[in-house]
Amino acid sequence: MISIEEQVRRQAEAAQAAARKMAALSSTQKNAALAAMAQALETSAPEILAANAEDVKSARASGLTPALIDRLTLSERRVRDMVEGLRAVASLPDPVGEVVRAWRVPSGLEVGRVRVPLGVVGIIYEARPNVTADAAALCLKAGNAVVLRGGSEALNSNIAIVKALTQGAGKTDLPLDAIQLIESTDREAVTAMMKQRGLIDVLIPRGGAGLIRTVVENSTIPVIETGVGNCHVYVHADADLNMAQSIAINAKCQRPGVCNAMETLLVHQDAADGFLPALAPQLIERGVQIRGCPRTLALVPEAQPAQEEDWHEEYLDLVLAVRVVDSLDEALDHIARYGTKHSEAIVTRDYQAARRFLREVDAAAVYVNASTRFTDGGQFGLGAEIGISTQKLHARGPMGLEELTTTKFIVYGEGQVR
Amino acid sequence: MISIEEQVRRQAEAAQAAARKMAALSSTQKNAALAAMAQALETSAPEILAANAEDVKSARASGLTPALIDRLTLSERRVRDMVEGLRAVASLPDPVGEVVRAWRVPSGLEVGRVRVPLGVVGIIYEARPNVTADAAALCLKAGNAVVLRGGSEALNSNIAIVKALTQGAGKTDLPLDAIQLIESTDREAVTAMMKQRGLIDVLIPRGGAGLIRTVVENSTIPVIETGVGNCHVYVHADADLNMAQSIAINAKCQRPGVCNAMETLLVHQDAADGFLPALAPQLIERGVQIRGCPRTLALVPEAQPAQEEDWHEEYLDLVLAVRVVDSLDEALDHIARYGTKHSEAIVTRDYQAARRFLREVDAAAVYVNASTRFTDGGQFGLGAEIGISTQKLHARGPMGLEELTTTKFIVYGEGQVR
Repeated sequence: MISIEEQVRRQAEAAQAAARKMAALSSTQKNAALAAMAQALETSAPEILAANAEDVKSARASGLTPALIDRLTLSERRVRDMVEGLRAVASLPDPVGEVVRAWRVPSGLEVGRVRVPLGVVGIIYEARPNVTADAAALCLKAGNAVVLRGGSEALNSNIAIVKALTQGAGKTDLPLDAIQLIESTDREAVTAMMKQRGLIDVLIPRGGAGLIRTVVENSTIPVIETGVGNCHVYVHADADLNMAQSIAINAKCQRPGVCNAMETLLVHQDAADGFLPALAPQLIERGVQIRGCPRTLALVPEAQPAQEEDWHEEYLDLVLAVRVVDSLDEALDHIARYGTKHSEAIVTRDYQAARRFLREVDAAAVYVNASTRFTDGGQFGLGAEIGISTQKLHARGPMGLEELTTTKFIVYGEGQVR
Repeated sequence: MISIEEQVRRQAEAAQAAARKMAALSSTQKNAALAAMAQALETSAPEILAANAEDVKSARASGLTPALIDRLTLSERRVRDMVEGLRAVASLPDPVGEVVRAWRVPSGLEVGRVRVPLGVVGIIYEARPNVTADAAALCLKAGNAVVLRGGSEALNSNIAIVKALTQGAGKTDLPLDAIQLIESTDREAVTAMMKQRGLIDVLIPRGGAGLIRTVVENSTIPVIETGVGNCHVYVHADADLNMAQSIAINAKCQRPGVCNAMETLLVHQDAADGFLPALAPQLIERGVQIRGCPRTLALVPEAQPAQEEDWHEEYLDLVLAVRVVDSLDEALDHIARYGTKHSEAIVTRDYQAARRFLREVDAAAVYVNASTRFTDGGQFGLGAEIGISTQKLHARGPMGLEELTTTKFIVYGEGQVR
């Protein structure tokens, strides 16, 4: 029997070989493959649901939380969403082959920069089995091979999904080795993936903060970091308070468990009296627990006192830290100190405050007068997204197909030498 | 006394604080600072040359190779080049603030992607003291703070250069902490730099393969890998043999010690008889040692037999591996197997061969009918360059000012919620 590390290496090698073929496929070939994969997924729905039922049964038996079981569970509707997702990716424009820019240099060479696939993309993710289909589709459309490592609790579901995708792809020009699922549930398999330098070109971890930290700290392959969002909404002195209220409620309550939800509300002292006592009951009615600074506590008696760690926390829950600040500068300093550079919003009617906030806040997405919940590939019009990058290199913010590519210089000469 | 790690952390913190101020500077302010730095460098030439003379003396005493001593040595001419370099960077267009793209989405939000500085750029480099001025200038122009860690053998020179730069900058709006030189020559200082996650945004190692590998394997900060180039020139069956000869000689001999020099020559079997016996004496006359495959040896009696490791080698010297191949496919396979994805060239008159080579070779720069020696920011018209990236994320090929920036999404709303 071969070791887990050797098994991962072989799959990464197979993916690397497939990547060369992937890069040469036309959009028509890739779209035909995605359509066939969607079809196969649709046909295999009963097998996928049966495999998923097994996963869910084991998850219940081992006492996973209801939230995790919900993420794990597939339904006919969720399978249909995966099928639609594949078709939607097929319909997106192909980023590969775009000449980003081309020019002539004094030596007479014609230099161009052309968009090409990254090669092999590794995705390490947790409970949701739909990521298997969604991530594979985006990677393949951008001309890459993909190595998938899902959560152990979703293994049967993932095997069934990849089987269907491979069956569909098998009827087309897509190289079969372009979709690799690491089936070992051992942590060693993740460690082995992080060592496949030269075979896997980039790793994208999708999941909780712990997973992401592990990958960032241990991978020798370049990593695109996704996810952690300690997002702020700052209500400036002159804000339209009705607008501020609807943005705050939306940013906190519409889907509190996601990375672009608000975690801390900052309020200018001149707006605090008129704003917080009106907002608090609405939040509390929606089940939000408020943790406030001393000035907030004076205005919102139901609030608990906030501790230093509250300003750092990504609650992902119906909890909100609230702080009254003296000025825009204090708000900017707070965000610079505690923020995770994900999504930050100001609510204001003041031109100069809006300009300064947009310019001075260092984050993937900076908003004036809108909810942070819009940070999303679909909402930004990028088509689908593979994740939201909170790092600065290569990709920042929602990552669409373009972020799954790189460029190369192509140079046309007529015998030029230096 | 504080520890080396603590010292590095403090400098990184100071740089991070300065980065917020740097991001807010206008182009005019940055250009004025670069001009003042150039002026101060010019005025301080005697002190810089004196400090450099000390470094060179110590280097001689400790038996450094003549090549390293040459890289270390400054002359009036080299100081003048640094001064000119600073002025040239000042004259380049400022990438910061460019709206890369902006559009309106169905919710009515206006979404834009705007170019912003990376933040704090860490540069780890070796003997050449001119990198200190060149790298600092590029980083500052792109609105970043910079943490510099040069080679221990150049410490006195680097201290003198940074002193001059800081003196010049001190007369302008540039925050003084934006230029940090790590003066400890202990390796621990490099290790400490690689741990400043959250304070240093990106590390760019510039130097030999050993340095780059160390940084890539140990850094928890994102790294832009530069440099190693095992570059090939492939002479196709129908190549213009005079053109092929001048390209091969240029790519090997014009400056053999750099990363874009040719290391392996591949020749189609139909061209080999007419090409290699004519080329070999010209290379040998220029001091090149040839290591050939069996078919090469039959045509070039002076050649040594090539070993498997020769195909992997980046000689950086007047040594050339030569291999006769059966076909374009064999050449493509050889490059995919042994290449380092730096610069690759084909010499051909065949339209289809040129197209396939451009499309199928996975490298930072792919050439038709030109020397690989053109892979350079200046030659490509990017202005100056901070290095040549051989990785695929963020930057690939020569990196100019644009590669020292990132983007953020800015979103203008009117109260939108989801």
